[in-house]
Amino acid sequence: MSTSPSSLGATVAGIGEVLQLFRSRPSLTRADVIHLTGLSRSTVNQRIELLVGAELVVPSGEGTPTGGRPASRFTFHYQRGVLLVADIGATGMRTALCDLLGNVKDERERAIDVAAGPDPVLTAAHVMFGELLTAAGRTPQEVFGIGIGVPGPVDFDSRQVVSPPIMSGWDRYDIPGWFADKYSCAVLVDKDVNAMAFGEQRIVYPDVRQMLMVKAGTGIGAGMVLGGEIYRGADGAAGDIGHIQVTVDDAADEPICRCGNTGCVEAYAGGWALVRDLRAAGKEVTTVDDAVALIRTGDTAAVRLARRAGRIIGHAIADSVSLVNPRVVVIGGQLARIEEQLFAGIREMVYRRSLPLATRNLQIVATRLDNRSGLVGLALLLADRIFAPDRVEALVAST
Amino acid sequence: MSTSPSSLGATVAGIGEVLQLFRSRPSLTRADVIHLTGLSRSTVNQRIELLVGAELVVPSGEGTPTGGRPASRFTFHYQRGVLLVADIGATGMRTALCDLLGNVKDERERAIDVAAGPDPVLTAAHVMFGELLTAAGRTPQEVFGIGIGVPGPVDFDSRQVVSPPIMSGWDRYDIPGWFADKYSCAVLVDKDVNAMAFGEQRIVYPDVRQMLMVKAGTGIGAGMVLGGEIYRGADGAAGDIGHIQVTVDDAADEPICRCGNTGCVEAYAGGWALVRDLRAAGKEVTTVDDAVALIRTGDTAAVRLARRAGRIIGHAIADSVSLVNPRVVVIGGQLARIEEQLFAGIREMVYRRSLPLATRNLQIVATRLDNRSGLVGLALLLADRIFAPDRVEALVAST
Repeated sequence: MSTSPSSLGATVAGIGEVLQLFRSRPSLTRADVIHLTGLSRSTVNQRIELLVGAELVVPSGEGTPTGGRPASRFTFHYQRGVLLVADIGATGMRTALCDLLGNVKDERERAIDVAAGPDPVLTAAHVMFGELLTAAGRTPQEVFGIGIGVPGPVDFDSRQVVSPPIMSGWDRYDIPGWFADKYSCAVLVDKDVNAMAFGEQRIVYPDVRQMLMVKAGTGIGAGMVLGGEIYRGADGAAGDIGHIQVTVDDAADEPICRCGNTGCVEAYAGGWALVRDLRAAGKEVTTVDDAVALIRTGDTAAVRLARRAGRIIGHAIADSVSLVNPRVVVIGGQLARIEEQLFAGIREMVYRRSLPLATRNLQIVATRLDNRSGLVGLALLLADRIFAPDRVEALVAST
Repeated sequence: MSTSPSSLGATVAGIGEVLQLFRSRPSLTRADVIHLTGLSRSTVNQRIELLVGAELVVPSGEGTPTGGRPASRFTFHYQRGVLLVADIGATGMRTALCDLLGNVKDERERAIDVAAGPDPVLTAAHVMFGELLTAAGRTPQEVFGIGIGVPGPVDFDSRQVVSPPIMSGWDRYDIPGWFADKYSCAVLVDKDVNAMAFGEQRIVYPDVRQMLMVKAGTGIGAGMVLGGEIYRGADGAAGDIGHIQVTVDDAADEPICRCGNTGCVEAYAGGWALVRDLRAAGKEVTTVDDAVALIRTGDTAAVRLARRAGRIIGHAIADSVSLVNPRVVVIGGQLARIEEQLFAGIREMVYRRSLPLATRNLQIVATRLDNRSGLVGLALLLADRIFAPDRVEALVAST
């Protein structure tokens, strides 16, 4: 509630706030901007002139100047440049080229192995970025920002991957540095599931302020939008629900997790654990996709494992619901495709364990963006970051 | 990151923001206010005049007008009225009279039984409020706000206690309504441990943005300050760690909890559960304070139970650390007084279970405000609420 005096000094709408108005609307007249900001006509004219000079705002179709009259209606120049994003998973990567509003215009997908280390993976992203730029008729100079999502914890301020359990060779790796001689633009790095949470919230649940996004894929992780913003915690480690310890009655021994501990949620219910258990039961599965396909055929042993995984993931979600009381829990990742079998177990545990107050208005749903929420979220996050009000002044000065 | 146009319209510093400046500093000159807000001299003069007229700001000692010159230095009139707060626990209540900055000036304590229901408990608070006012030479008309902390979940917007497991008769009770014919002022209702978290953060850890406060008393609960603000969740149910389910190896059967479930953290490790287990072991204890005293004598069986309680509370804290990644975990409540035996178990579980990234900078500490954090937090929260920038205009108009 307290407002620090220094932030008060910045409350008069600057050029960044004016650009923000254009980003959130199709077009605006000078009078609209005066009305919305309370700024004087001369100040509004000066700010719009600077934004037009930087080609971030352009005169729009209606109200185009005729007979020497200055343009009265303007629009954000979202085609002024492009954004490139790469959502790196454990075994696959999706990349996209987006406009400056964060709309995905073109995308590519290919298999990778994140454990091969940063250089081969980032090289693959760079190749795909080149293909996307060529297809769009764009140059590297037109790239305003790059967004990279990774399947591990990120120290958001230093933009480094930190102590990732499954990303060997990535600890403290300088991802922005890798791109520095290829593009002269901002590089944002975030945890994949944070981007997924942001994409899902912004596109599907714009009015929801508290959302928990669970990625149930090879591993299990969570991202949160709290108070309408991505919540990362003190060190970027928030949302680590895959390594919450659970006790499972029918397990003889606690399975060993990839993190080195025993009894973690993902050691029972992650995609890799399902593959392990299905193989132990004599099933011919190699990948998480194989496991998902087998479960969807209705194979009895596989379905039983899926229901058990649902209850175990549900245990971690119930704890999370008790702690952060979200309005919506969204389940994404490959395992979300076995919705029926998984969700019954999840809902059973959440409604059994969490306070009625926390569940009376709770929705537990599958992702509506399928496997694109990470890509979509990265693009929106990147656009917000590049055009954050406090950065626009420098952006205008540099163009 | 996105700023809505309507909030932009309010970014020019209004009278509320000007009062906010005075609240956060000993005194200010007109020139200081002009400098800090960017407002014109005439606007600043007009706003200060309104605040002086409402007696919320007064000319301060230095720079007092002489020879007809207008005063140049002003200060927040924190003695203009008083705040009354009551921190209601399961078995005891603390009340305080505070100045308008939220500083506790006088306090009272007495035993109550929260399960007796709202009327006797609120009557007791009202009697104590009367005593505090009389002792301070103040009248009910001088009360600017009342803050009530309760040991149960609160729907913060409707200011109602909701589905409280231990507060029979309080569900949906209209606490502000009870006070309506006695005081004509704002009444704020919050969960006790939210107020504790806020008090601890504001007074002891003002630079920490992510804090988890655990109250380990008769029951177990948590409050959070995330991003510098109290985090309440979508329904006010956030922080319910006492009913996270744990499995305990040496327990023959899962104990039944007060909430109706089995195997909850507090059914093993809450004060009431320790009393139950100590009595079952033949110890002469009746209250949680008796149990704490016995543990502090070093009684072997009691110490063993305390260490076990520490590990079980630690399990819930480890889950919370994995999920919200706080910088500081503060333990308060009666059980925090058995610090040595309890903290070893808590730290053991957190460092064993949570990601290194989440624990490398983590502090786990006992409350520094002892059993006064709730009272202190309620007063600060109430002061912030009454003088929230968007409410000051109405306040000025009404005085």
